[in-house]
Amino acid sequence: MDTRPLLLNADIGESFGAWQMGNDKALMPLIDCANVATGFHASDPVTMQRTVALAIKHDVLIGAHPSYPDKEGFGRRSMACSCEEITAMVIYQVGALKAFCRAQGGILGYVKPHGALYNDMMQHQHVFEAVLRGVAAIDASLPLVVLALPNLEQHEADAAALNITLWPEAYADRAYTPEGFLMSRRQKGAVLSDRKQILEQARMIATQRQVRANDRSFIELPAVTLCVHGDNAESVATAADIRAMLNEMESSL
Amino acid sequence: MDTRPLLLNADIGESFGAWQMGNDKALMPLIDCANVATGFHASDPVTMQRTVALAIKHDVLIGAHPSYPDKEGFGRRSMACSCEEITAMVIYQVGALKAFCRAQGGILGYVKPHGALYNDMMQHQHVFEAVLRGVAAIDASLPLVVLALPNLEQHEADAAALNITLWPEAYADRAYTPEGFLMSRRQKGAVLSDRKQILEQARMIATQRQVRANDRSFIELPAVTLCVHGDNAESVATAADIRAMLNEMESSL
Amino acid sequence: MDTRPLLLNADIGESFGAWQMGNDKALMPLIDCANVATGFHASDPVTMQRTVALAIKHDVLIGAHPSYPDKEGFGRRSMACSCEEITAMVIYQVGALKAFCRAQGGILGYVKPHGALYNDMMQHQHVFEAVLRGVAAIDASLPLVVLALPNLEQHEADAAALNITLWPEAYADRAYTPEGFLMSRRQKGAVLSDRKQILEQARMIATQRQVRANDRSFIELPAVTLCVHGDNAESVATAADIRAMLNEMESSL
Amino acid sequence: MDTRPLLLNADIGESFGAWQMGNDKALMPLIDCANVATGFHASDPVTMQRTVALAIKHDVLIGAHPSYPDKEGFGRRSMACSCEEITAMVIYQVGALKAFCRAQGGILGYVKPHGALYNDMMQHQHVFEAVLRGVAAIDASLPLVVLALPNLEQHEADAAALNITLWPEAYADRAYTPEGFLMSRRQKGAVLSDRKQILEQARMIATQRQVRANDRSFIELPAVTLCVHGDNAESVATAADIRAMLNEMESSL
Repeated sequence: MDTRPLLLNADIGESFGAWQMGNDKALMPLIDCANVATGFHASDPVTMQRTVALAIKHDVLIGAHPSYPDKEGFGRRSMACSCEEITAMVIYQVGALKAFCRAQGGILGYVKPHGALYNDMMQHQHVFEAVLRGVAAIDASLPLVVLALPNLEQHEADAAALNITLWPEAYADRAYTPEGFLMSRRQKGAVLSDRKQILEQARMIATQRQVRANDRSFIELPAVTLCVHGDNAESVATAADIRAMLNEMESSL
Repeated sequence: MDTRPLLLNADIGESFGAWQMGNDKALMPLIDCANVATGFHASDPVTMQRTVALAIKHDVLIGAHPSYPDKEGFGRRSMACSCEEITAMVIYQVGALKAFCRAQGGILGYVKPHGALYNDMMQHQHVFEAVLRGVAAIDASLPLVVLALPNLEQHEADAAALNITLWPEAYADRAYTPEGFLMSRRQKGAVLSDRKQILEQARMIATQRQVRANDRSFIELPAVTLCVHGDNAESVATAADIRAMLNEMESSL
Repeated sequence: MDTRPLLLNADIGESFGAWQMGNDKALMPLIDCANVATGFHASDPVTMQRTVALAIKHDVLIGAHPSYPDKEGFGRRSMACSCEEITAMVIYQVGALKAFCRAQGGILGYVKPHGALYNDMMQHQHVFEAVLRGVAAIDASLPLVVLALPNLEQHEADAAALNITLWPEAYADRAYTPEGFLMSRRQKGAVLSDRKQILEQARMIATQRQVRANDRSFIELPAVTLCVHGDNAESVATAADIRAMLNEMESSL
Repeated sequence: MDTRPLLLNADIGESFGAWQMGNDKALMPLIDCANVATGFHASDPVTMQRTVALAIKHDVLIGAHPSYPDKEGFGRRSMACSCEEITAMVIYQVGALKAFCRAQGGILGYVKPHGALYNDMMQHQHVFEAVLRGVAAIDASLPLVVLALPNLEQHEADAAALNITLWPEAYADRAYTPEGFLMSRRQKGAVLSDRKQILEQARMIATQRQVRANDRSFIELPAVTLCVHGDNAESVATAADIRAMLNEMESSL
């Protein structure tokens, strides 16, 4: 089992123009990795500039969070894009964010696709390969965050062919099917809201790289990183609890 | 007087999705520098990817052509953006294009703002400084194309303060005022259409760094580069004539 | 069999800002019905204003051509929109076009969804119903153009429930499967390019409401309207031939 | 002096996709007139649909709030649009909103341009005339909200030429110059934050159609309507106070 400390990641910088979203200032000090929106589902150049500055200030690893081009749908609507389009949109967005990082003396650390692009990449190999080609075109040393599944062999093989490292991620606040997938948000009980239960799931992922599925069976998840949310005061407080727990675990090693 | 050969530049890669514009395949072999649209006034990630490939194939220097965010207005409508917005939009767009260049083994060579951003930069010092800060944030070694004016002292001083080199550009097909500005397109006679006259103006710029203003007086322009257009078959043919003339001049040196 | 004259429809007004598309001036005099782009896949307010003026001048029936919100993909990429989103986007776009019609003393005559929205509507009943609700919200007396299939019973029933009339349309330049669907554009031979063959297919649709499928079998299509294209000089010439043929048929009645 | 009751108006429906803005549910019961965003600076078709439903539920008069096409800048950045573009963007947006009103059995009641378009219209006669032409094209019986100035003679004359009624509006929470203009937001003290002071200014406008300028002089403003804001809990509370004050005044008549 993986005994390395689990990295906390969160979606950051998702305001857009006059519209605010999330609570970046409260969340940034709690996380290891910031998935920074790159202007296609959220954000704009000024917001990206400021978000990168905030991440650097808190010494948080900056990741690019590219999306389908759909602000109105917040990148959550699957779009039938061609592989060429997907590769090019990844290059465009990651390149733009990288420029803000370099301009401020920061470093771009990884890539995590957003929303529907993330889901499509996990379900369709041609989408996954198109994303990989985009990452490789920028810099194959950038890890790509994927959903931690019990079996990631095919994904690992595809990534290895382009010398890309995968960072499987697990979720503390989502229910899992016995096959290791996230329950669809459309189903009842898909999103955990009980703070104790979320903390317990986070602890199991951190210590055993396991979660308990919705049928009470145990699933092995090779997670390198854990995704938390900061949409509201409640979720920020939960993220703080998870951060404290991880810190305690690390200091007790 | 400057006896270096004059670089030919043209706006390239201004198609968008299903819409075609210009004749890049015909124009690219004729020019030294391609001002590649970066997605805000024209182009999209796939078009940028293909345009960079075409430029590399023809060994043409690639320049970023950032714009105000206004596809509907093709970047030609002045927008009251803040300095912070202008700097950030330059970083975003130039960074995105740079990623396509690097992905294909090419090099980003310079920056030339587009349309209303270009005009506003020449008229308002705070806009010019905001653009300069954007270029410096990416890479101060990237030259910035500006309108060649008889007096560019202030612009040169501002650029020098950030270690940026300016590339003044002249126009072969635009009428000049006695002060060295381009006549407004809204005035009759602002755009030259007679091929012989355009060639004569190009020759005078190339050999003497001068143009004849609309009052027949001579104006000194410290041009490093000459802008040509490829909107239609006629303008491509004229560009080919100018290319041939410059080649002849260089070979006779 | 339907002996009413077949209405010729074409996609019109698909320019956008500085980008031109199609040849509206040549096509408009040839058609009965103009599917006018409404700003989501193509066009902009000024283009819509001018396109409506051109249609009125030529006494062509104006139809709204709403789309998914995707200019970059020209409305050809399926998007996973909710039913509420689809109904609302239809109301928005049709309402905007209707305003231009009324402003110029014209009348909005029908609705034909564009591209991926059209395809999705024909394949998924919930999308079709969402479109119908949008049309009904504007004005249930507006006919809705659908793909003419041998069996449209379910579509007819859904439309009738909202008092909406369907206008099935056939294609002169597309190959048909034995089931009466259009061959996918990804397959070879899906788009007919031989002018004689296109004219023959148009004649069979006009006189017999039939086409010959790609296995040489005959299919009955209850078409009320025939779609033609005006992308280039060749297709405009073919449209002119079809127009002449239909005129001749009508005068010989 | 005008003794008619003053109409309270507020900007409503300015959420966009996943981004929330304002507190429409709290504000709607307090106002007479809702300036409903029409998709260019804020909102989207679904948000418009829901906003119109909310306004109808509260029996609030629905006004269209058209803007320059600039979501990133929230319509606050002046854009150098042509008169033709301005007229057409007004028709497009007002037409779209009108369709949502009609679909739900509501009525579109007036037009109030947003942000930079509003400011430009008050400062440049050609912009004002372009807006008027857009309103007249939709329906000249729709009143147009303008800034109440001591002298609106030219604006009134321009509007009368197209049979359009103007609704001058005043602000309870903005400081005025002695000439009757709003102090620029860039100047200190431009926006009033003291609730008592705001209420006092509202009372003076309501009872005397006057405000006190920043030099303590009195200015006559022919206001028909008073603009309030609902950006946060504080401003909603102030709006409630103003509503109560106006109700009291009306009941005491």
